[in-house]
Amino acid sequence: MPSFTAPIKDLQFVLHDLLKVSEQDIPGYADLDRDFTSAVLEEAGKVASEVLHPLNAVGDREGCVLENGIVRTPTGFKAAFDAVREGGWTGMDCPEEFGGQGLPYVMHTAAQEPMVSANMAFNMYQGLTHGAVSAILFHGSDAQKATYLPKLVSCEWTGTMNLTEPHCGTDLGMMRTKAVPNGDGSFAITGQKIFISAGEHDMADNIIHLVLAKIQGGPEGIKGVSLFIVPKYMVNEDGSMGARNGVSVGKIEEKMGIHGNATCVMNYDGATGFLVGEEHKGMRAMFTMMNEARLGVGLQGYAQAEAAYQNAVAYANDRLQGRAVTGAMYPEKAADPIIVHPDIRRNLMDQKSFVEGARALTLWGAYLIDRAHKNKDAAADGLISLLTPVIKGFQTDKGFEYATAAQQVYGGHGYIEEWGMSQYARDARIAMIYEGANGIQALDLVGRKLAQDGGKHVMAFFDLVKSFIKDNEGNAALKSGFLDPLKAASKDLQAAGMYFMQNGMKTPNNALAGSYDFMHMMGHVCLGLMWAQMAKAAMEALDAGTEDKAFYETKIATGRYYMTRQLPATAMHLARINTGAETVMALEAANF
Amino acid sequence: MPSFTAPIKDLQFVLHDLLKVSEQDIPGYADLDRDFTSAVLEEAGKVASEVLHPLNAVGDREGCVLENGIVRTPTGFKAAFDAVREGGWTGMDCPEEFGGQGLPYVMHTAAQEPMVSANMAFNMYQGLTHGAVSAILFHGSDAQKATYLPKLVSCEWTGTMNLTEPHCGTDLGMMRTKAVPNGDGSFAITGQKIFISAGEHDMADNIIHLVLAKIQGGPEGIKGVSLFIVPKYMVNEDGSMGARNGVSVGKIEEKMGIHGNATCVMNYDGATGFLVGEEHKGMRAMFTMMNEARLGVGLQGYAQAEAAYQNAVAYANDRLQGRAVTGAMYPEKAADPIIVHPDIRRNLMDQKSFVEGARALTLWGAYLIDRAHKNKDAAADGLISLLTPVIKGFQTDKGFEYATAAQQVYGGHGYIEEWGMSQYARDARIAMIYEGANGIQALDLVGRKLAQDGGKHVMAFFDLVKSFIKDNEGNAALKSGFLDPLKAASKDLQAAGMYFMQNGMKTPNNALAGSYDFMHMMGHVCLGLMWAQMAKAAMEALDAGTEDKAFYETKIATGRYYMTRQLPATAMHLARINTGAETVMALEAANF
Repeated sequence: MPSFTAPIKDLQFVLHDLLKVSEQDIPGYADLDRDFTSAVLEEAGKVASEVLHPLNAVGDREGCVLENGIVRTPTGFKAAFDAVREGGWTGMDCPEEFGGQGLPYVMHTAAQEPMVSANMAFNMYQGLTHGAVSAILFHGSDAQKATYLPKLVSCEWTGTMNLTEPHCGTDLGMMRTKAVPNGDGSFAITGQKIFISAGEHDMADNIIHLVLAKIQGGPEGIKGVSLFIVPKYMVNEDGSMGARNGVSVGKIEEKMGIHGNATCVMNYDGATGFLVGEEHKGMRAMFTMMNEARLGVGLQGYAQAEAAYQNAVAYANDRLQGRAVTGAMYPEKAADPIIVHPDIRRNLMDQKSFVEGARALTLWGAYLIDRAHKNKDAAADGLISLLTPVIKGFQTDKGFEYATAAQQVYGGHGYIEEWGMSQYARDARIAMIYEGANGIQALDLVGRKLAQDGGKHVMAFFDLVKSFIKDNEGNAALKSGFLDPLKAASKDLQAAGMYFMQNGMKTPNNALAGSYDFMHMMGHVCLGLMWAQMAKAAMEALDAGTEDKAFYETKIATGRYYMTRQLPATAMHLARINTGAETVMALEAANF
Repeated sequence: MPSFTAPIKDLQFVLHDLLKVSEQDIPGYADLDRDFTSAVLEEAGKVASEVLHPLNAVGDREGCVLENGIVRTPTGFKAAFDAVREGGWTGMDCPEEFGGQGLPYVMHTAAQEPMVSANMAFNMYQGLTHGAVSAILFHGSDAQKATYLPKLVSCEWTGTMNLTEPHCGTDLGMMRTKAVPNGDGSFAITGQKIFISAGEHDMADNIIHLVLAKIQGGPEGIKGVSLFIVPKYMVNEDGSMGARNGVSVGKIEEKMGIHGNATCVMNYDGATGFLVGEEHKGMRAMFTMMNEARLGVGLQGYAQAEAAYQNAVAYANDRLQGRAVTGAMYPEKAADPIIVHPDIRRNLMDQKSFVEGARALTLWGAYLIDRAHKNKDAAADGLISLLTPVIKGFQTDKGFEYATAAQQVYGGHGYIEEWGMSQYARDARIAMIYEGANGIQALDLVGRKLAQDGGKHVMAFFDLVKSFIKDNEGNAALKSGFLDPLKAASKDLQAAGMYFMQNGMKTPNNALAGSYDFMHMMGHVCLGLMWAQMAKAAMEALDAGTEDKAFYETKIATGRYYMTRQLPATAMHLARINTGAETVMALEAANF
């Protein structure tokens, strides 16, 4: 059985040494001093380790069961959900007027991480509810907010997002679910939605479905899509629950992982729905939530890798097998622990340097979202909009890769379900797919975000990298280990952007054939930037005479690993990109 | 539900256009003309598609069940195993005197591929039996051969390999299973073995376990390990079956995949065992089989990717979603099939170019094994010994990566078990672990094989690449697309070898920290060589006026993709290797 401990020191390091949150001019940030965030994270870590983690294997083994239209969640889930609710974890960053704590999003994100690591499938119930809260908060009417938000913020009720249909996922313009006006301001919603996470379950009194549908007679395609609230039980004016609405679960899917979360086929049969925002502007409402939702999925990627990594380290220290090539290190034991072997080290350092870099990037992203929302900072909004597909696509690809790498440390035991490492890989796999498959993230990045607002945001990103390098040029300790490789990687990224400019305008396939490589390349540059900044912060802490020397020295050494061993990937991605679409598009479809 | 068609044309291309098997001076090869191999492969393909493939999902869903000491295989497995036996597929390359067909190993390997693609878990029952046959054939006494081989060759009985124990896998010197002489020439075997594939099942009358154990009083460690035959039922002198032996299944494991194969804990309780070969020379017997066994696992890697690829192509042609960026290609349809999108192409070309390259490398490896055995060719033996860890390690890593990539093409449907793509990924995952985890393959390659016989074999490999390039320099069609990238990649590989020579002698960690990268780098160079040779063969077929122009042109285009998009990885691996052990070994174990 795996174990899990929240990486509180690492989270604190990112919040304070790197982002210096309490010094930022963002409303609410002044309260985020070290003691406060530490207390919150300690508590979150306790819930994660003591309440959620023990249920991770249970959820995987039992899964959810559909019987007579009712979905039974795994043993212990309901009690744990009550505990999470009572702890106030569900509405940490929601407005106080609706029962939340009004804390910054960056605090919510940091507190979420250990819970996602401990039990990803479980945490999705509150994660999706959080998405529903955002949709209603930004686009709902005052009456809708009053009716739904307090219950959703507390997770007394949970929420869902209904986009996908059997024949359309990415291409929502093909949607068939229909909305017909009832004459009383409400609509009758009819259609089938699939892959609806937490679509039905037994942990909340009501479920508020957010459903995309087409109002009859509206524009064709994606421009005719509207967003509706469809409650499982109607809500009376006094807030009490009324009749059962015409929505039901048709089936729950058997999946590769996240068994603890019910993935439902939802059937809407003239269900009563209430328009959110304007008619035909449903996609706009979706896009508002997208940065947050995708950042959350990017977090799932590295959070699974973190949990898997912790166990791989424990196993590598525990498992005795062979001797160090340089001579027995523990001659008193039957063999040395496998952590002495360089290839096991390489594997663990790959995992560690990725996870810590991704954590920094994700929390920086959360900080940018706060700055965009609370300070109405358009530059921050543009930057996070650029970074979002990278955080989602790169981090979930790598998160799965490294969860699998952690499994590999266990040898044969990694393949046996009892040891728990397979679950991390199987659970992490979904993050590459949902909330926009990673190929779509790459398309979004190269096809939309690079050119957005005249390329302003990507230029701002490059400027940020450039000025960090320039500002620290005199720092000899940073130069060769961090600034030089960052500069080289960033040069590769710029060259790729230049290739797209020169070759992608006339022949868009030349850019799109390189989109996936570009996404990964940019991921490496982002993590390179994070590591350079973290190394600088760690050096400052050491210079200031910190008592925790080993921690900060380990940070620097881990960063140096990333710079020397991971950043060389950018040259490979550039070489691929520079070959354009020719070999990618060479075959007739029939010849595959 | 996935479908599967044996890639007979591609197999024929490798056997005849590339390897020109019927022209080789290896005993038995003259019979391998196009018509003969085509007939064999057609039949193998039929068994694969019609008998084995329909049971692939059944095996995954039902798994094996242990009840009262008896393991029940999934519905239909027994009848299918009978069909495979009756078709004579189990002993194709075994000596005729023991009931085999005496065909070359390369023919056996080619015929196995579709069966492994169609149902990997099922095929392991015969695969392990094949390993037992080899062990007895090369190391058993005449009496042992007469007693066991006819029944094993026909798969009336099946075989197993028992190496691993709970506390030792890689480091078999720590083995505890004991062999005590019974005084009558036999031994009493006592101990526990784990991860025993096909350890117990209901498809054969008897199971012949090959068990590593230590004879009491023998040398310490790995030098005291001997190999024993331990039959489930004793075999009487007249060949009839006698008493039940003291071996039993303790448990079957729940695994991430290959559910159709029973992975058993085997308990030996004073079981009667018969020494194979000399006392304390058990590892030598194991090593004899290793090239074959590891090549077989390398085949599993790409064979799963092949099966997954076929379905990804079908889905990409079928699924309508979005429009080509260059304008609708099928305006009459609701949307274009997703195969029009460059990033889907990139993904499919990655898969296709890997699978076809790996097939060539694997069959070349099988050819080298034939040449080594049948022609007593020491150079071929040295070369396959060098290539074996690459075939096993690189191909199983990539096989899993691309089975996962094929799953990705399906979007959300790829995550749903019903669609079958998850199984390919889950099944492929084990190939990276068993038969020596891939980190061990990298260690074998860099720590042993590079320096073997004074580095003769790796020099021979480089010479082979060099002379291919030199011999074809005048071929303008090959030069820029194939020879130049191959030359660059091979130069990177040589530079890495040079780095190891200069830095790994004094400080072995400098070499071992780069071992995994070297294994992948060499995998790319091998596939680059295969593609250059295949492109040449395809060009020759086109020059000769083949009727199947599209097939050969597709080969060349697929090869060009590999050279432009995959070979740039070698520079990245070299850059990592050149940083040595410093950042890899920087941390104290406690600081991970």
